[in-house]
Amino acid sequence: MRAAFMYGAGDVRVIDVPDPVIQQPTDALVRVVRSCICGSDLHPYHSMPATPDGNSMGHEFIGVVEDTGSDVTTINKGDLVIAPFAWSDGTCDFCREGLHTSCRHGGFWNADDVGGGQAEAVRVPLADGTLVAVPVEGNSPLIPSLLTLSDVYGTGYHAAVKANVTPRTTVTVIGDGAVGLMAVVSAKRLGAEQIILMGRHTDRTNLGREFGATDVVAERGEEGIAKVRDLTGGDGTPVVLEAVGFLPAYEQAVGVVRPGGVISRVGVPQYDDAPVGFDSLFGGNVTLTGGPAPARAYIETLLPDVLDGRVNPGRVFDREVDLEAVPDGYKAMDHRQALQVLIQP
Amino acid sequence: MRAAFMYGAGDVRVIDVPDPVIQQPTDALVRVVRSCICGSDLHPYHSMPATPDGNSMGHEFIGVVEDTGSDVTTINKGDLVIAPFAWSDGTCDFCREGLHTSCRHGGFWNADDVGGGQAEAVRVPLADGTLVAVPVEGNSPLIPSLLTLSDVYGTGYHAAVKANVTPRTTVTVIGDGAVGLMAVVSAKRLGAEQIILMGRHTDRTNLGREFGATDVVAERGEEGIAKVRDLTGGDGTPVVLEAVGFLPAYEQAVGVVRPGGVISRVGVPQYDDAPVGFDSLFGGNVTLTGGPAPARAYIETLLPDVLDGRVNPGRVFDREVDLEAVPDGYKAMDHRQALQVLIQP
Repeated sequence: MRAAFMYGAGDVRVIDVPDPVIQQPTDALVRVVRSCICGSDLHPYHSMPATPDGNSMGHEFIGVVEDTGSDVTTINKGDLVIAPFAWSDGTCDFCREGLHTSCRHGGFWNADDVGGGQAEAVRVPLADGTLVAVPVEGNSPLIPSLLTLSDVYGTGYHAAVKANVTPRTTVTVIGDGAVGLMAVVSAKRLGAEQIILMGRHTDRTNLGREFGATDVVAERGEEGIAKVRDLTGGDGTPVVLEAVGFLPAYEQAVGVVRPGGVISRVGVPQYDDAPVGFDSLFGGNVTLTGGPAPARAYIETLLPDVLDGRVNPGRVFDREVDLEAVPDGYKAMDHRQALQVLIQP
Repeated sequence: MRAAFMYGAGDVRVIDVPDPVIQQPTDALVRVVRSCICGSDLHPYHSMPATPDGNSMGHEFIGVVEDTGSDVTTINKGDLVIAPFAWSDGTCDFCREGLHTSCRHGGFWNADDVGGGQAEAVRVPLADGTLVAVPVEGNSPLIPSLLTLSDVYGTGYHAAVKANVTPRTTVTVIGDGAVGLMAVVSAKRLGAEQIILMGRHTDRTNLGREFGATDVVAERGEEGIAKVRDLTGGDGTPVVLEAVGFLPAYEQAVGVVRPGGVISRVGVPQYDDAPVGFDSLFGGNVTLTGGPAPARAYIETLLPDVLDGRVNPGRVFDREVDLEAVPDGYKAMDHRQALQVLIQP
């Protein structure tokens, strides 16, 4: 089959690879209907060292089950399934606590002999725990919105949940990428009364307003911080959802968080050390939380509104490519010509 | 009157200063009955640059009200009062949220023309908000335990509260100083079923066991981390209370926290930057919380058990000095000859 591999920064190729096959009795084989390029895929696209063998890519997909191992009981051939961005058994203590990304027997796509979603098909380990069958056809107009449950919507929702967003909360969302916009949707879903979106791409922040942002701050750094403080009586907001992953976004979060507040990070940090001392987090009793979203944990919660069309998170996909054009999709996202690119293999 | 001033690292002197007087109608004048030297006083004792004018010292005291300003209504002359380590109005939005250390009109001792507790008397701003009158005499044997409500008990409790310690929680406490031991008392009060105390001073960890620690790990660094993991099935604990403030203690906390867990810091950080990236906090969805304890917020909660003698946090005071001997008290704590030094002016 054909699959997208990354060989180093800026170097994505679509190549022939062996067809995946069932290896374990708990596996399912899924033919990909739609996958996508994630904002987090741009991190290796900027920094990955040259790698002769390349890495398979893509960690979010929707597909049709083509085959299942003998131990799989809840997923059937022909099911349309959502695959969240980590695979997990659904039964260990971490999964029961809703932390599927720390599953004792789980893992991530594109590692340990498991391929990625930017391909024609994927072997899915621990299919019963990992996959969620949804009652729609493969040509449903809901597919893009359902695909966001694989990652970006669950990730934005994770940010909001970890920050305990409730009605009456005032929220700042840092970043107008797909995850930032999903953080807006999520804060709105949880009832936040003011949602300040920090982003400078008007087409994205306009979509953010439609998703529920009440204010947009295009400025960054000190200027952006001052703007958010102006909008909040000088205090900043008790909740800050950081959906970028670069250090300046973290520093911006520290600048706009109210004493006693929470910074919830879901942008994968592209830094190790950051300010956490008296003048940044400690003095104001600021909490830092977040991490890789256990997207699997949120699918059942978020699914009904997507199926009913009450939310349309799939609007973050503003371009569609076929598998052969995946390298162009990366370029478009990298050049900010596309917000998020859908792939139809 | 006499008061202890610090002039630089290792340089504490007791000097004559003007008697404090009522300056604002909301002030009270408090004659100190007992104050103490705090573990956090050792930080400037190690690092304070030479300062010709010196700084007054001490941020926790119990005393008798000698006079009150004309606007003070709830505190009366002759009351025995606890003064928490920040003064606050008790009425602003932060105080109502229980974050008195961020009070809009409050402040800290030893700044802004307000003296410190290591003195004969103190002018207390915003007396109605700041002081808590307690129904005991100045010679009560409960005084040392009541004094811990000024800071160390409230600080240990803050660590446990911010980490949401509940029954069934497994907790690691890092540090066997007074705050670490109070974190043990607090975790026990909130029902924690396993409390692992990391500390290497046997007399202190023995007291920690009496306070509720179920396990003691004397090793530090990688060895200590391995020991805690051994005690917890390899996972570490979902709650880590960090009561030291040095970077190695933070790194130890990162090493022993379970995925999805919380590191709650109340040791004043002696560092600015620390690891917060994928491999430390983010990957395991670890939350970092804590800050200066709003000790005032917890006094009413913790007071009854102290008055009834059900807890005896005052046991952390293992030496008493008069005001003239305060410099010796600093030395004793610095040399680990005393855990915490009580001062009788």
